[in-house]
Parts: sequence; structure tokens; C-alpha cells
Amino acid sequence: MRIYHKAILPLGFEACGLACGIRESAKLDLALFYSTIPAKASGLFTTNKIKAAPVIVSKTYLKNNKYFRAIITNSGNANCLTGRKGLDDAKKTTEVLAKYLKVKKESVLVGSTGIIGRKLPYLKIKEAIPKLVKGLSRRGIEQAKRAIMTTDKSPKEITVKFNIGNSEVRICGIAKGAGMIAPKLATMLVFICTDANIASEALDKALKLSVENSFNRITVDGCMSTNDSVFILANGASKNEIIDGGIHFRLFKKALNTVCLELAKMIVHDAEGATKFIEVKVKQAKSFSEAKKAALAVANSNLFKAAVYGENPNFGRVASSVGASGIDVREEDLKIKLGPLDRKEVKVEISLSRGKAECTVYTSDLTPEYIKINAAYS
Amino acid sequence: MRIYHKAILPLGFEACGLACGIRESAKLDLALFYSTIPAKASGLFTTNKIKAAPVIVSKTYLKNNKYFRAIITNSGNANCLTGRKGLDDAKKTTEVLAKYLKVKKESVLVGSTGIIGRKLPYLKIKEAIPKLVKGLSRRGIEQAKRAIMTTDKSPKEITVKFNIGNSEVRICGIAKGAGMIAPKLATMLVFICTDANIASEALDKALKLSVENSFNRITVDGCMSTNDSVFILANGASKNEIIDGGIHFRLFKKALNTVCLELAKMIVHDAEGATKFIEVKVKQAKSFSEAKKAALAVANSNLFKAAVYGENPNFGRVASSVGASGIDVREEDLKIKLGPLDRKEVKVEISLSRGKAECTVYTSDLTPEYIKINAAYS
Repeated sequence: MRIYHKAILPLGFEACGLACGIRESAKLDLALFYSTIPAKASGLFTTNKIKAAPVIVSKTYLKNNKYFRAIITNSGNANCLTGRKGLDDAKKTTEVLAKYLKVKKESVLVGSTGIIGRKLPYLKIKEAIPKLVKGLSRRGIEQAKRAIMTTDKSPKEITVKFNIGNSEVRICGIAKGAGMIAPKLATMLVFICTDANIASEALDKALKLSVENSFNRITVDGCMSTNDSVFILANGASKNEIIDGGIHFRLFKKALNTVCLELAKMIVHDAEGATKFIEVKVKQAKSFSEAKKAALAVANSNLFKAAVYGENPNFGRVASSVGASGIDVREEDLKIKLGPLDRKEVKVEISLSRGKAECTVYTSDLTPEYIKINAAYS
Repeated sequence: MRIYHKAILPLGFEACGLACGIRESAKLDLALFYSTIPAKASGLFTTNKIKAAPVIVSKTYLKNNKYFRAIITNSGNANCLTGRKGLDDAKKTTEVLAKYLKVKKESVLVGSTGIIGRKLPYLKIKEAIPKLVKGLSRRGIEQAKRAIMTTDKSPKEITVKFNIGNSEVRICGIAKGAGMIAPKLATMLVFICTDANIASEALDKALKLSVENSFNRITVDGCMSTNDSVFILANGASKNEIIDGGIHFRLFKKALNTVCLELAKMIVHDAEGATKFIEVKVKQAKSFSEAKKAALAVANSNLFKAAVYGENPNFGRVASSVGASGIDVREEDLKIKLGPLDRKEVKVEISLSRGKAECTVYTSDLTPEYIKINAAYS
């Protein structure tokens, strides 16, 4: 597997990004990802009961449709808590884009990120769509990856290349998110495209496993967005022998896992106000879910995260979080190793002496800057 | 019911507080609460799996013993993560005190608050015990209520008086805690004494209901201490007709509830770094537990609390927290009222349109000062 820390579109994909006027001062705010041939797709979305309109629309399309051609996404407005009007706006966006792309509206997926509770400026999007379609190109990914950013300090992008039999296959992923979620940004959005030829069920399964192993193992503030979405398009342009289980599936899953985990780590590195990247590893747990529960309890503890910010090696805050996590742990079995805190990357290792399972999660420190960013917004 | 915002010891109680040298610069750090006659007792403790030694010792004594005489508590050291030595120190503290009070060691309860993971300076406590016992008096509550403070800005105290039949009964409570919990302080400690004559089961039940309705409805940082303890001693000195159900129980419960809720609110008012006191009320829920779940999700949201700090009326952060809380809620049913934010006390009211249950919880805003306090500690 070859890893490139840059978005390189796989075969048969094009993209475009432009400024349609949703965000102030001509910032890029509209992105289009396009497959020149029909692609299989899979998506995973927030489990928040309050879901943004584009999440509801995309979920429905993914359920009722087999092949997909495009994903359109705006930043600057989450299109959430916008009622029936918001749903209509999201649907109309896919209809107008489908018309210009000359494809079915159900083959167009949609995402949004930005402020919650304000009406989507749909007319601005509608007017920009012809230009967006006209601008599609392989190099367009440079603008597209920036058009999904909000308070992100830099684009989050990665490409991996690997072989299935004699065919080279590519997976390219881009992401946005500077809090795990933050209603301010309102979201973590991830777009992955691959030219792999893969069965639909295998694609669903690989995405689910990879997301569980990456985006579901990071936390910045323990809050869950209404817009979180991970999309993957697989158009088969690499013409590899179809991936449908066995060694080919394992190769694909490993590559997709790398893409997701690297993007997830980039999100934590860029977390709002953060000065440190923290890895919390829980070992010797009875099960993976027990390890994850304990690790997330530590990673979500304000007190632990403030202590790391202060470079203060506070074992008590780690022990107290593990004890409060709901897992069964005894003081005499608990071993805590805290790495040096005067670094940009900090490691915590917790051993439970209960079994052989382990889980690592990633988080950032909690800083006065985080509060300032999230207090200042209006 | 008469309410006094001051600790006035009920009949048959004495107290003392002094500086034994655990904390720096001669700060008061050892408190004793004493009943001159045998008292029934009840206690509720942290559900953290990592429990401090005094919690383990006091729980055992409460289980195996019927009458109690005293509670001794130090600040400056939590006696937690201190292994077998910590348990021995807590037990020996009760033994030495019992010897000087000429009572059984199992009739002496013990509490600690302070830093986690450091050995209790037991010898300092042992040496101070004779002086502590000699200093017992009714006015000693003035020192005792200060000796349990750590970063608390002021003592938290309340007394209520009410009648059971023709007898006047008193309940006096003092508390410490400037985070809901914070391993730094490590704890919320509450001491309640009453001269009520009450059956043991009625006392247990009244305490459980009152704590559920007060200390279990406040949160500062969502973290759970290893030392949280609520103690009540009831010595019957008011000679009222025994409280064992019916109207008398309801009167007692109402008075105890007032004591607990007022103390709980004082803790939130004094929360670390806080500039605002926030009341989150969830209405029209299917059940009380559903209402509480939603209310606590909002009250524990860093993003919501940072928004209140910034006086930024962010409805999206409230909706997003309710949606992520695990309860079943639909966007179209959710009504959110945010009171004015430019006040010291802020109210949020959330209606779910699902039923008739409601719950109110209390929290504070999240501020850069909170981070500074908890980062600076070592």
C-alpha cells in the first residue's frame, strides 16, 4: 500500500469547488464530487435524533437507489432545524444538479455544514450549479477540498494506492471537522472515492468497519453533531476483479481503514483550540467494547484534558474517569502509564488486568482557546 | 418551615475544626461533628468504581452498625488510590477518635477530600485528635464548616426548623464542593445533622429521595468523584413523636429536601471558574428519567456551556444535545425557550411534547477560568 498525504482523484472522478455567496467575503462554500460513470455508494450518518435535512435526504436515496453519480455539499449553513422547507431545499438541490448532470435526482447525494437553525440560502446554490458543473475537472479537487472547510486550519486529505490482483486501485478521502463535532461548524463531513470494483455489500461492510475503527474512536468535546456524514463512492474504473470477500476484501478494508484513520487523526490534530494530540490506549480489557468505553471516558473528561493542557501528570483524573465509566474495575488491578506531557503528542496507557482486548482512541486537550472559539460565535 | 442561611446545630450536636498541618499555611483542614447522644445515621456515596478509603470504611460501618456518634473529615488529601495503607489509615483514624470520645470505633464515620493518590498524613491527624475532641462545642461549627473547604469561595450552610406535632425539629446541613466533582478537590462532601426522632428506614428513604432530587441533579463538569459522600446523623434530641411514615414523614422529607436542594445550588453557584448559574428545565417528557436524561445532556454539553459564557443564544446547541441524549425526540415536537443570557442566572426551558413529566437540573457555564484552575494544579 502506498500512502500519499494529498488528495489524488481515482480514475473516473472529477470535482469542483467555488464561492456561491453563503459564507462572507467570497470564501469557497460549494463543492461537487462527480463520477463520470455510475458508482456504487455507501454512507454512514450521525445517530443524533435531530438530523439535518441533507442527512435525511441522502439516507433515503442510499436506501432506494443502487448507482450514484455525485455528491454536492455546502459549508456555512447546516440546513438543520429548518423543518419542511429545509427538506425541500435539500431535495431541490439534488434535482437541479441532476438536471445539469443529466442523471437521476436519486443518484445525487447531498451534505451541508455550518450554522444550525438558519434557512439554507437555496437560491444562491441553485444559481451556482451550472457553473459548478461546468467547472468539473480532475484538478477541481483542489478547490473542492477547501470549499468544505469552516474553521479547519487546513484541508484534510489522503490517497492510498494498492493492488487487487494485477490492477492498481486507488482510494482518496477528504474530510472537514475541527471539533469531533461542534454545532458551530455543525459537522464532520468525509468524502471518499475509489475506482475499486467492489460488490455493494462488501462496500457497506468495509465502510462500517473502517468508520468504527476511526471516526468512532475520536472525540474532541464529546458532543454529537446533527450533520456528521461519511460518504464513499466506488465506480469500478480500475477494472479490478470484483471485490466480494476473501483476501481482496481484506486488502480493500485495510486500505480504507488507513484512509479513515488518517483522516480521523487529522481532525483531532486540528481540533478547536487544541495544543496537544492525545492517544488513550486501554489494554487488558474483557472486550473491545469495554476497552473503548473506558478509553472514551478518559478522552471525554474535561478535567483530564485540562490537566494535559497544563502539562500536569494527574493520574487521579485518569483513574477517576475509568472508575466512573461504568466498567467493572478494581483499584488494585488498574495500571496507568502517562507519557511525557511536554510534547505535542501525548500517550496514556491504561491496563485493566481483566482480559486481552484493547482499544485506542484519540482526542485533544481542552484549552481556554476552545472556550473562546465557542463562546465568541453568534 | 423556617429557613436560615446559616449553620445552627440542632439539639445534642457539637463540632470542632482546626488546622492539623495537611494543608499549607495553617489552613483549617480537620473537622469533627459529634452527637452527645447515640444517633441513627444514613449515608450515600459515589458510584465510582474507584472509591476512596474513607468511603469504603464508612459504608462498612453504616452497614454493620446501628447507632453513631461522630464524623471526622480532613481536607487537603482524598486518601484515594492509596491501597491497603489508605484503608488502614482511615480505620485507625476512627479507632483513635473513638478512644478519645469513649465510644465504639464503628460509631465513628470518616470522610476525606483533596488530592488523589498521595498517602494520607495519618500521624498529623492522630496527633490532632485530642485537641479536636477537647475543642468540641456548639459554636465549633464555625470552624468545622471552614475546615472542609478546599477551593470553595465560601462555606455552604443552611438550617431549617419545622414542627412535628408539638415538637420543633431542626435539620442543619453543610457542604463543600466547587466542581460537581473534581479530582483536584476530590469531592463533594455533605454533612447533615438533625435532632429529629426518626425510624432508621424512614431516615434512609428520606435521604435517598432528597439526594436524588438535589445533588443528583447538579453537574459542573460531568465528572464523578471518588470521594462524594452525603452523611446524615439523627439523634432524636427534639423528642418528637417518632417519624415513621405518614404526614410526619412527608414533613421531614420536605424539610430535608429543602436542605439538600439549597446546598446543591450553593455548590453550583460556587462552581470552578463559573460566571453564570444555569437552570435547565425539561417539560412534557414521557417520564422523569427521560426528562432528567435530556436535561443532563444539555447541562453537560461543553458547547452549550461555552455559548452561555459568551452570552450567545445558540438554540442549535441545545437541540443537538437533546437529540444526542438517547431519548426519542422529533424536531417538530421540540420547543426551546432561552431566557436572557446577560444575567447571573440563566434559564433554559425545553418542551418535548411527549408526556407530562418534568425535571430541572442546575449547572454553571464553562469558562477559560475553569480550564486555568484545572490546568494549573500539580
